[in-house]
Amino acid sequence: MPLLVMKFGGTSVADLNRIKNAAMKVKREVERGYDVIVIVSAMSGKTNELVGWVEATSPLFDAREYDAVVASGENVTAGLMSLTLQEMDVPARSWQGWQVPINTTSQHSSARFVDIPRKNIDTKFAEGMKVAVVAGFQGISPEGRITTLGRGGSDTTAVAFAAAFGAERCDIYTDVDGVYTTDPRIASKARKLERIAFEEMLELASLGAKVLQTRSVELAMRYKVRLRVLSSFEDTDETSGTLICDEDEIMESKVVSGVASSREEAKITLVTVEDKPGISAAIFAPLAELGVNVDMIVQNISEKDYEDHPGAVTDMTFSCPVNQVARARKAMEDAKAAGHIAYDDLVVDTEVAKVSVVGIGMRSHAGVAARMFKALADENINIKVISTSEIKISVLIDRKYMELAVQALHDAFELEQA
Amino acid sequence: MPLLVMKFGGTSVADLNRIKNAAMKVKREVERGYDVIVIVSAMSGKTNELVGWVEATSPLFDAREYDAVVASGENVTAGLMSLTLQEMDVPARSWQGWQVPINTTSQHSSARFVDIPRKNIDTKFAEGMKVAVVAGFQGISPEGRITTLGRGGSDTTAVAFAAAFGAERCDIYTDVDGVYTTDPRIASKARKLERIAFEEMLELASLGAKVLQTRSVELAMRYKVRLRVLSSFEDTDETSGTLICDEDEIMESKVVSGVASSREEAKITLVTVEDKPGISAAIFAPLAELGVNVDMIVQNISEKDYEDHPGAVTDMTFSCPVNQVARARKAMEDAKAAGHIAYDDLVVDTEVAKVSVVGIGMRSHAGVAARMFKALADENINIKVISTSEIKISVLIDRKYMELAVQALHDAFELEQA
Repeated sequence: MPLLVMKFGGTSVADLNRIKNAAMKVKREVERGYDVIVIVSAMSGKTNELVGWVEATSPLFDAREYDAVVASGENVTAGLMSLTLQEMDVPARSWQGWQVPINTTSQHSSARFVDIPRKNIDTKFAEGMKVAVVAGFQGISPEGRITTLGRGGSDTTAVAFAAAFGAERCDIYTDVDGVYTTDPRIASKARKLERIAFEEMLELASLGAKVLQTRSVELAMRYKVRLRVLSSFEDTDETSGTLICDEDEIMESKVVSGVASSREEAKITLVTVEDKPGISAAIFAPLAELGVNVDMIVQNISEKDYEDHPGAVTDMTFSCPVNQVARARKAMEDAKAAGHIAYDDLVVDTEVAKVSVVGIGMRSHAGVAARMFKALADENINIKVISTSEIKISVLIDRKYMELAVQALHDAFELEQA
Repeated sequence: MPLLVMKFGGTSVADLNRIKNAAMKVKREVERGYDVIVIVSAMSGKTNELVGWVEATSPLFDAREYDAVVASGENVTAGLMSLTLQEMDVPARSWQGWQVPINTTSQHSSARFVDIPRKNIDTKFAEGMKVAVVAGFQGISPEGRITTLGRGGSDTTAVAFAAAFGAERCDIYTDVDGVYTTDPRIASKARKLERIAFEEMLELASLGAKVLQTRSVELAMRYKVRLRVLSSFEDTDETSGTLICDEDEIMESKVVSGVASSREEAKITLVTVEDKPGISAAIFAPLAELGVNVDMIVQNISEKDYEDHPGAVTDMTFSCPVNQVARARKAMEDAKAAGHIAYDDLVVDTEVAKVSVVGIGMRSHAGVAARMFKALADENINIKVISTSEIKISVLIDRKYMELAVQALHDAFELEQA
């Protein structure tokens, strides 16, 4: 029997009516001949309520108890979804993490999958169950305690089940109807993509497109799980939404598939750093220790007069999320005070944004960077930092130009055309 | 290490402040040198919310899914209580039913305990845990699914743990401060009892005193678990509340310990029933099949003229809860239509109440019935049905006299005096 994984997020199961609506989508797939594994999130708002109670009880909470409390939201939805399907004459039952069992590591609140044995669920499919409704976001540790995967972990649960059970596809039902060439709230010409390659989706997800968790896309890419993102709130069929798949399944890629943007960025420059072997490690090790997520890094030749500094000197610039600036500054000042690094000044610019173009076609096409920089120059947008990967070019610019830059790049690469 | 079981009901853990208040009571017992097993209910209102969702989803719900959904309320409280204790520097951890495991039968929503292995919890006590916070009301079936014990099952969970772990005592914290000689809302002279025997409590519980679940008292009596009922909302010490214990622990019992009353009773009389062997079975089997809880049964010689009925005839009267009258009537009419029983008329009186006096002292004292009937006669209260057990006398009377009867009996047996 072919098998499908269907995942419904919190807004898609927010109340009994929405659960019923989701169940109708599941029933339709059963009628088409699929066995289905449904992954559910907690009803929207419920996880926040539970997290609020835990945090109010104990500011430095025991993550094991946090997980035990918070995972209960998904258990409720799983039971209700199973009941709703039974009411529609679809043989269903609910599965909590420990019942499958979903074996994870012991890192509470950020556990990783170890394995998902098929035996228990397969036995029930063989006995006539058509739908296994699995509580997302949770698992069980080797010590027999409840773990969670971190917020948004239900997407990852869905992909992990699709991989473990060899599903034909993993459909992620959410509150948007697919993946767009860029954020439609920024560029009205944004176009929904029919297909996008794993690598592109991964860059878009990590660059700020909030449709899917980065981790779930990574897992899908590793196990070649065909992922589809589509809307819970619309009538959908087999061609709805966006398919995220291996690039082999995409006939002809455009050079650039999408434009991503990220608003809350900051740029930090260490001025007149002594330039000697090991200096980069001396700078970035303390940042990592304090949990600063350094993104782009650029090292420039310093413009300072060499006479003031007998050794060779440089400027070092990096970017990080705005809310980590205080931590980054502390890491640098402590390292300077300890004598591990030396610099004249630390300059922070919290008014920047990151804009990126992404596309697997870049691998075989030259001139993408030139076209990008020209489009920005035509709008008089100054580029502060550049970084590139095989399928992506990112720039830091003044935040006030972010929307303008996205629109200009969307036009320059003709993304409104399929 | 001596061990104590402490149980907190829904109103005692209704919000984070009350959970904290309960945790302080637990901490105090730990400081006195006890290892503690805490049994918690769901925060009040939560179980009703979950039950409401299940019933709205599926009127004839799958009890296995009902249990999976509804048991999640206790899991939340267990985690929050454990966190609260940790915050007070008391080493605690939460236990869900399947983690202990609490092995039960497969009768979902009304499961019964099979066994509670001590190994997992004892191992953690040996490692330094001082408090095991256990989610009440739930267990796990031989098939590995979540079961519940039925509403109020947390009391029973507490007693079962006290029996399994050889606890010195099982303290039931609730919203009243003990067991009274009668309902204080009915008789202002009601007095809190310091001690009461299991058998007496069992009669009081099943007669309508809502302090404890009948089943938990039965279990306590069978395993000689000393039960204490006391208030969550007052400062309490080792002499607070009411101790429910073996009668050997009660120095000198009064003849009557308490007066119980039950308002929602109905009296049903089958008039002119053919009186022959097997007729009682023919009447009460169909009632049991339809789930009618028959309480008192009286068989009278019929006053009908024997000439109209050549065989011997009788009247048969029984009582049941008011809300089961329709079912009882259907059972009788179906049995009559099927030719299994014959009667001239079925007379229902839905305006009756039951009043009972209870006391183990009755076993060795004559004259209790006479004293009871005289007290009622002095108030011109007519007795409609009488039934007796070794330690209890119950009467059905007109409902409008119920409060008067309770007060008169409380006075007649001088229950306001210790």
